[in-house]
Amino acid sequence: MTNVLLTGFEPFDGSGVNPSWQAVQLAAATPPDGVTLTTAVLPVVFHDAIAQLRTAVEESGAEVVVCVGQAGGRTGITVERVAINLDDARIPDNKGAQPVDEPVVADGPAAYFATLPVKACVAAVRDAGLPAYVSHTAGTYLCNHLFYGLMHLIATERPEVRGGFVHVPFLPEQVTGGDQPSMSAQSIADALTAIVSAAVTTTTDLKETGGSLH
Amino acid sequence: MTNVLLTGFEPFDGSGVNPSWQAVQLAAATPPDGVTLTTAVLPVVFHDAIAQLRTAVEESGAEVVVCVGQAGGRTGITVERVAINLDDARIPDNKGAQPVDEPVVADGPAAYFATLPVKACVAAVRDAGLPAYVSHTAGTYLCNHLFYGLMHLIATERPEVRGGFVHVPFLPEQVTGGDQPSMSAQSIADALTAIVSAAVTTTTDLKETGGSLH
Amino acid sequence: MTNVLLTGFEPFDGSGVNPSWQAVQLAAATPPDGVTLTTAVLPVVFHDAIAQLRTAVEESGAEVVVCVGQAGGRTGITVERVAINLDDARIPDNKGAQPVDEPVVADGPAAYFATLPVKACVAAVRDAGLPAYVSHTAGTYLCNHLFYGLMHLIATERPEVRGGFVHVPFLPEQVTGGDQPSMSAQSIADALTAIVSAAVTTTTDLKETGGSLH
Amino acid sequence: MTNVLLTGFEPFDGSGVNPSWQAVQLAAATPPDGVTLTTAVLPVVFHDAIAQLRTAVEESGAEVVVCVGQAGGRTGITVERVAINLDDARIPDNKGAQPVDEPVVADGPAAYFATLPVKACVAAVRDAGLPAYVSHTAGTYLCNHLFYGLMHLIATERPEVRGGFVHVPFLPEQVTGGDQPSMSAQSIADALTAIVSAAVTTTTDLKETGGSLH
Repeated sequence: MTNVLLTGFEPFDGSGVNPSWQAVQLAAATPPDGVTLTTAVLPVVFHDAIAQLRTAVEESGAEVVVCVGQAGGRTGITVERVAINLDDARIPDNKGAQPVDEPVVADGPAAYFATLPVKACVAAVRDAGLPAYVSHTAGTYLCNHLFYGLMHLIATERPEVRGGFVHVPFLPEQVTGGDQPSMSAQSIADALTAIVSAAVTTTTDLKETGGSLH
Repeated sequence: MTNVLLTGFEPFDGSGVNPSWQAVQLAAATPPDGVTLTTAVLPVVFHDAIAQLRTAVEESGAEVVVCVGQAGGRTGITVERVAINLDDARIPDNKGAQPVDEPVVADGPAAYFATLPVKACVAAVRDAGLPAYVSHTAGTYLCNHLFYGLMHLIATERPEVRGGFVHVPFLPEQVTGGDQPSMSAQSIADALTAIVSAAVTTTTDLKETGGSLH
Repeated sequence: MTNVLLTGFEPFDGSGVNPSWQAVQLAAATPPDGVTLTTAVLPVVFHDAIAQLRTAVEESGAEVVVCVGQAGGRTGITVERVAINLDDARIPDNKGAQPVDEPVVADGPAAYFATLPVKACVAAVRDAGLPAYVSHTAGTYLCNHLFYGLMHLIATERPEVRGGFVHVPFLPEQVTGGDQPSMSAQSIADALTAIVSAAVTTTTDLKETGGSLH
Repeated sequence: MTNVLLTGFEPFDGSGVNPSWQAVQLAAATPPDGVTLTTAVLPVVFHDAIAQLRTAVEESGAEVVVCVGQAGGRTGITVERVAINLDDARIPDNKGAQPVDEPVVADGPAAYFATLPVKACVAAVRDAGLPAYVSHTAGTYLCNHLFYGLMHLIATERPEVRGGFVHVPFLPEQVTGGDQPSMSAQSIADALTAIVSAAVTTTTDLKETGGSLH
């Protein structure tokens, strides 16, 4: 059995729901074979999110960590490739903090790459009949912040753990006005299950392009 | 009981599936109370589609007709407001015809408005937690062609029937590359059920804006 | 010489500028050979706009009328194909009126097609190196309102006049935040000049597709 | 006088023109006061681009280096914040190479941040009446490759030089079909001039958010 930690975020920015946590809970109901799945919901609060993630990693004994967050406006599941050492908050977090041009970790490196097999994860979601692609920016808000914090924890304290971040679209109920793309909670959950399976079973990532021209 | 005819289209443009017909079939499994639902799948062929619709209207004795088609790239369910008397095909239909700047009906009026309560239909989909809005163009391909044909049939021969057209997004499985919005077949079916209910029970449409600035 | 009337709109929706009127003024500085160009700026006010257009048509003796308006969010010059008999205002006009689901002209037909050679106009803009396409909806606000009013005037009183409507993008200065497309005033003016030339010299429109699938 | 090197790219991907080099040439015609401007056009070829940039930096004695590239589909001028150590080419370069998941520099750090004042550069473009924003991904093709190569050169050999990368939209003539945003060559050139001025005169960057939620 492989221990996997799957995290979502609480709601933010005035929304009553966060698709990441909804889908993580649904995915946890039917974990893939061979996987012991632990879940955690994290606060949309700079630094608190990383602190709670650290606790969850310790308590779960996770060998693979997949953090999940909302990327409103995206059309598909996006597997993030790189976390950067930058907080630049366009809106305040849930405790009112709004850091501008500050590092996530003082004196940390400029960036970390995900250590999940990102191409295999994207392929697994597509094989499940759902839209997915590799993303090269997780933004500069809580999602990138947590992702960087995770990879820094792995790099400095837990090199045996593999980790990464997945961005997911809005839920339909968040965008009933109709001009934003969305994905059902069950579809997002199915995608997360496919990603967890791929992450656990793939040791060498696929060698196929997932690049973007800009 | 109210007789309702709900139609979808067969696949086209190289796709193996058409979300309109998939969703219509799902919706037919659980019709709203008080509704006798008949369904039909129509060919993506100019004029043949209208001829087969005419037959389906006659055979079903429909009092309300809702035609459904795929609008790849749209993010939500769109209830069409107006059909125009114009065929201008960017790609050939399934029999190879590609009319350019021809009327749907020679000497027909320039346009017909839907006689469904379009605002109430949009509100019903939103109440079901799904994205929807009013659209003011159904394009110039098969969907507009069929919609115009339906409204011309109603105007000239069956004034007691009410009718309209609904455009639906791609299915997730059609756009696994990830850069196009999509909606699950079940969500589209739920939206169609909400529209049928609203169409049957609403006699005076809501007086609220659904306009577009351009 | 051919008398051409080219109209723009005053600013609205809190903006200090309207690209349509800016570009019309620039275009008027260098009219095409063989064209006597008259311009007019119209109010963003339901019915007043049509009344002032009627006066400008009378006073100019125009044989060709091209009305121009802003379509914020569009990426290119769009030549409108059809005007519909519907006012459905998402925001109030400059006098505070906000009609919802009212006809432009009581008892008027559902729609009028432009009588400009829309395909030739699009081709002329593209030949000038600028982005353009045919549009099948002018919305349900002032632009469609004026366009319908123009075509109704032509249909009922001035059948010898040819007319149409052109939507243009935001100016760069209106969208410095960067997430909306724009076009420079000079490029828009060049496009309008190309359209006026094409409208005056083309008697039979090009037979090539400008259709949209939905 | 401050020595500034401004580079553009040659055309690629079947286009006959590259807006970056067109605009750089226009900008060079009227350099800001106090600036000696050198320009160079670089090949869309992995590693050759960096080698030629190195030569241009040496020969120009540049104190500030601004590299410019095309980002087709973007609506405004984007000042890039971070270069990542990853080549993942969706299409071959102009010599046919298509690296997938290779580092730009073996054993280089995961990323470098631009050392230009990115917020001040964005503000300067907006003050010039043109659309701009900060971007957190330069993609994984030639633009990111060159940007990373520049920052690695600065970090390892020329710490006194400040450098960064600017992505610019398509030219109108590249997208006459109309469904892609564009910006005129002169507007892009004006934006580059504003960026060069801001880069030369700003020592402490503005402390204001330019963040993205994802």
